[in-house]
Amino acid sequence: MPTLLSENEIVSGLKELMGWTRSGGEIKKTVELKDFVHAMGFVNSVALLAEKANHHPDIDIRWNKVTLALSTHSAGGLTANDFNLAKAIDAL
Amino acid sequence: MPTLLSENEIVSGLKELMGWTRSGGEIKKTVELKDFVHAMGFVNSVALLAEKANHHPDIDIRWNKVTLALSTHSAGGLTANDFNLAKAIDAL
Repeated sequence: MPTLLSENEIVSGLKELMGWTRSGGEIKKTVELKDFVHAMGFVNSVALLAEKANHHPDIDIRWNKVTLALSTHSAGGLTANDFNLAKAIDAL
Repeated sequence: MPTLLSENEIVSGLKELMGWTRSGGEIKKTVELKDFVHAMGFVNSVALLAEKANHHPDIDIRWNKVTLALSTHSAGGLTANDFNLAKAIDAL
C-alpha cells in the first residue's frame, strides 16, 4: 500500500504542480478548455494516463470545464501516486 | 428557445426513460460499468450524442460509475431537449 505523505511533503509537492489546490485528503484542479469537444479530448488524455498508472481521478465535466480530484482511497489520503499522476496531467 | 415542460409532461417523460430520476430542474442517472475503461467507453458514446444534439449533460466519472445530469440551462429547467437526449442515451 502506498504511504501517506506528511504535511511537509504535501506542501512541497503542491509547489511542483500547476493549478492544483488541496481540499482535505485530496488535490483538485479545474481546467477550462475551448469547448466541449476540447474538454473531451483533455478528459480522454487524462483517462489514458490514469489507466496506465492504475490510479483514477474523479472527473467532473461541465461543458468546457473539467475538474479533477486525486486521492489514494486505499491509503485514506494523499500519497506519491496522486502527485505523480498530477504531474503527468500537468505535462499534457 | 426551447419551452419548459409542464409537470405532467415531465412525469410522463420520466416514465419513458430507464433509471432517470428528477432532481429539481434536472434529470439524473447513474450508470455502473464493469471498470474505468468501460466507463470511459460509455462517456465517449454519451459525448458523441451530446455534441450531435448540441446539448451537453453534466458528467461525473467515479472509476466505474458515471452520473449524468440533464437540464436546459437557457430555459431554466427541463425541456424536450433533455428527454430526447436521455432517450438516446438509454438506447446506447
